[in-house]
Amino acid sequence: MPTNTREQVCNFGAGPAALPTEVLEQVRDDLLSYAGTGMSVMEVSHRSAVYEQLQADAETALRTLLGIPAHYSILFLQGGASQQFAMVPMNLLPPDGQAGYVLTGSWSEKAMQEAQAFGRARIAGSSKDIGYRQIPMDDELDFSLDDAYVHITTNNTIVGSQWHRVPEIPRSIPLVADMSSDICSRPVDVSRFRLIYAGAQKNLGPAGVTLVICDAPWLERAAANREIPTIFRYGVHVKARSTYNTPPTFAVYVVGLVAQWMLKQGGLAEMERRNRAKAGMVYTAIDDSDGFYEGVVEPTSRSSMNVTFRLRTPALEAAFLERARAVGLVGLAGHRSVGGIRVSLYNAVPLAWCERLCAFMDDFRRKPDALSD
Amino acid sequence: MPTNTREQVCNFGAGPAALPTEVLEQVRDDLLSYAGTGMSVMEVSHRSAVYEQLQADAETALRTLLGIPAHYSILFLQGGASQQFAMVPMNLLPPDGQAGYVLTGSWSEKAMQEAQAFGRARIAGSSKDIGYRQIPMDDELDFSLDDAYVHITTNNTIVGSQWHRVPEIPRSIPLVADMSSDICSRPVDVSRFRLIYAGAQKNLGPAGVTLVICDAPWLERAAANREIPTIFRYGVHVKARSTYNTPPTFAVYVVGLVAQWMLKQGGLAEMERRNRAKAGMVYTAIDDSDGFYEGVVEPTSRSSMNVTFRLRTPALEAAFLERARAVGLVGLAGHRSVGGIRVSLYNAVPLAWCERLCAFMDDFRRKPDALSD
Repeated sequence: MPTNTREQVCNFGAGPAALPTEVLEQVRDDLLSYAGTGMSVMEVSHRSAVYEQLQADAETALRTLLGIPAHYSILFLQGGASQQFAMVPMNLLPPDGQAGYVLTGSWSEKAMQEAQAFGRARIAGSSKDIGYRQIPMDDELDFSLDDAYVHITTNNTIVGSQWHRVPEIPRSIPLVADMSSDICSRPVDVSRFRLIYAGAQKNLGPAGVTLVICDAPWLERAAANREIPTIFRYGVHVKARSTYNTPPTFAVYVVGLVAQWMLKQGGLAEMERRNRAKAGMVYTAIDDSDGFYEGVVEPTSRSSMNVTFRLRTPALEAAFLERARAVGLVGLAGHRSVGGIRVSLYNAVPLAWCERLCAFMDDFRRKPDALSD
Repeated sequence: MPTNTREQVCNFGAGPAALPTEVLEQVRDDLLSYAGTGMSVMEVSHRSAVYEQLQADAETALRTLLGIPAHYSILFLQGGASQQFAMVPMNLLPPDGQAGYVLTGSWSEKAMQEAQAFGRARIAGSSKDIGYRQIPMDDELDFSLDDAYVHITTNNTIVGSQWHRVPEIPRSIPLVADMSSDICSRPVDVSRFRLIYAGAQKNLGPAGVTLVICDAPWLERAAANREIPTIFRYGVHVKARSTYNTPPTFAVYVVGLVAQWMLKQGGLAEMERRNRAKAGMVYTAIDDSDGFYEGVVEPTSRSSMNVTFRLRTPALEAAFLERARAVGLVGLAGHRSVGGIRVSLYNAVPLAWCERLCAFMDDFRRKPDALSD
């Protein structure tokens, strides 16, 4: 393995992903003694005033950033989106009820599959027949007033598509969203959703903590009549303010720092401006390549988080990845299920990395046969 | 809040708890660039060769330390012991079957409660009638050849008791153990257990990762015939080597460093020697106090991890805690459900802290009415 410094590497990985250097520096500086305690954050009791304050600060920063209504709860859980795929229907899909899932990629399919064990999980829209290259239009959605909820995946990391609107469905049908890969990348009207979940390891922090934002009074009313292990009940975590059991304290701490970093940068409007500029630059490099690079997703559904494209042959893609790696552009391989190239542009990725990438794309296009250094 | 340095504070908290300073220094030094990658461990993909190696190294260190048989799997899961309380019966208790739970404290009670939703969870021994002050004797155990498994909690953090033997039950009855608070504190014959689980936040690392050690071929044979969400199936995690979904990569990394630290110290025999010396010193301070301090647990069942004792009145206990805190002895309050004093002596707690504590206990006993500084 070559030894690289932080300055040499541009990490376009899909998650766990790049974090702001300022946040990592803070973590490093706090590592042996947090806030004058003489203890690492990792060593502090989750029942201590120090941790309570830390978690409250993280919640406040997220509430401010996302404009979360006061009656919504913020939970820090474990198990990632994959665990939410089970917890959502366990808690919210009555045994004799139904829920709608809009299929926009592999992760939404998995979410629906897990729901099928708990009730009737039906397709409320899908673009599978066109390889998920587009987000369904509103008139293609098949919602029902009988749906306990309709579930969407706001950003699809594998194919590289993103919802650029909240689907137009009656407000009496609760919306549930997996925002794992685009939460905090842009402003969002949280009040349009009854429950939002997101694994932290893309825009929010390290792997190992899952953010759940939920309309707590609604959750209580909507709870499915089913025996659920205590640890999987949202209501238990709402009541215990995420400390029913020991929360992943260190990961919550980093999420708090990242949220405070976003606020300092100018909040989610500024994040959106930057993310559009970054993604715009890479999409332009694709669109201006005379077909050398071919975008996977229809322009109207393109993600500003995960830009996906193909080259003419797998061999050329392999050469692209190898030469990119040699110049410090890492994490560009598409998901193992689909191949191709994927450029993940989460909040912590600076515009300068995109400039380096686009220069490389231009260079590679002109001399695809050159050997890597 | 006063500002303390690391040298001034002795952290006797019950978890999240003290970690070895050498490990924290390593984490700090790696924080911005791990192993020459130019990326923090938190930023590295869980599908990368770098992470695969890191996890393999952590597994190897644990396998060596604990003497884990080759056919056992090591899993890094999420959700702590509380999630295992549900996953164990979900996976292993057939709907028409039964399992035995030996009750030795609040956590074992919770484990049994969660099992009751999945089959017949019955008491296979209990010392609840004597306030859990003793671990049941072998002739007090009520196991059955019909038990899908018998569950024990090897160390009871709240009351402060510990199993100092593996219960004598027929080897055809699978033993399952919650070792959250004493794993790696002493050598253990892993082959006597079919499944061991432990939240990391006491002896192994930060909160947010749960170690599961299981006899994988047995697990497959014993799997309860029940529909289980994918994420809660042990078999799924065994097959995917803990990367079915994104594991808590940073926490796994710290666990690996802690395991390597234990090996360097001389392994589990040395951990046991130190833990006995530390606990022995504190128990002696209790026993030699002419009844000023009163141990909670019968001597034969005393824990070397959590030493619990009472003072004559709650007011005296409050004064003890306050004065202790003032001299940098923190985390000594008993669990909120029982009160009193609890001294947690996990592997990372050095003998020198116990010396400071015992000197304080002696001083407090002589001048209980002195004001704190």
